[in-house]
Amino acid sequence: MANAEAKDRKILVAVDEGEESMYALSWALTNIISKNSKVILLYAKPSRVIYPTVEGTGYLFSSNIIATMDKYGNDVADCVMEKAKKLCKEFEHVKVEAKVEMGDPRDAICDSVEKIEPNILVMGTHGYGIIKRTFLGSVSNHCAQRVKCPVLIVKRPKPATEK
Amino acid sequence: MANAEAKDRKILVAVDEGEESMYALSWALTNIISKNSKVILLYAKPSRVIYPTVEGTGYLFSSNIIATMDKYGNDVADCVMEKAKKLCKEFEHVKVEAKVEMGDPRDAICDSVEKIEPNILVMGTHGYGIIKRTFLGSVSNHCAQRVKCPVLIVKRPKPATEK
Repeated sequence: MANAEAKDRKILVAVDEGEESMYALSWALTNIISKNSKVILLYAKPSRVIYPTVEGTGYLFSSNIIATMDKYGNDVADCVMEKAKKLCKEFEHVKVEAKVEMGDPRDAICDSVEKIEPNILVMGTHGYGIIKRTFLGSVSNHCAQRVKCPVLIVKRPKPATEK
Repeated sequence: MANAEAKDRKILVAVDEGEESMYALSWALTNIISKNSKVILLYAKPSRVIYPTVEGTGYLFSSNIIATMDKYGNDVADCVMEKAKKLCKEFEHVKVEAKVEMGDPRDAICDSVEKIEPNILVMGTHGYGIIKRTFLGSVSNHCAQRVKCPVLIVKRPKPATEK
């Protein structure tokens, strides 16, 4: 899929820990991203969950545990971005920018579309069973309904064993 | 958006009476459809609604009215396809095929994806107010969740007066 008159474009790709989003990125790189495109990788890091104690004065977790959770969150973000950038490197002509936003992926993605105004938003989706689909697919559904730009939802084909 | 290595591809574009689907087709033609692409235009014509009478032996509408409704349905299908083909003609290098299927658009689109196995499904969506969005957007949501191929949902920008 190509168009000779394609101009410089901003492609926002939402990435997460799942193989689905990496497949979506890879598909987009192969099929719709031109030489003059800039790929903006977006990862939404979940906000730290704070549990107030019964008396409302402290936290359920000690500071050590919170620090460990924060480190884990950062490690995951780094790992996702590294994997995504590695995929992009195979397409030398593509400019890449990485953005990590805090919060619910649905809000982070919609807010980023509003700020960045990309030409297209690319997302993966999960499709293994109705419960997973209902829960996890809600991010792409939510964003597809709310953002103003075109949305490309790429589903990873099921491995042969799952067919 | 383009890729030099793009091969022959089948792009299924769901079209209907709305300006949204024509905008989606136009966007896809400009942005993701290459010289070697084949665009398959799909229009789902609503099945004839049969209302049994109270005693279950006849129809609420006379045969004249049914014939008029059928003719109207065919005229709408022709009009939509004509409009869509006209848009495609501006892109001389694109091969075009038109398909009219009977039934609910959701089923017609999902069934066609299964049969045709396109590289991508392109759909428009409506975005004017929550009620319209909930009702009309359900076709693209439904299909995005169910079909196996990548789905591109293109939303028509609101006219300046509606902003």
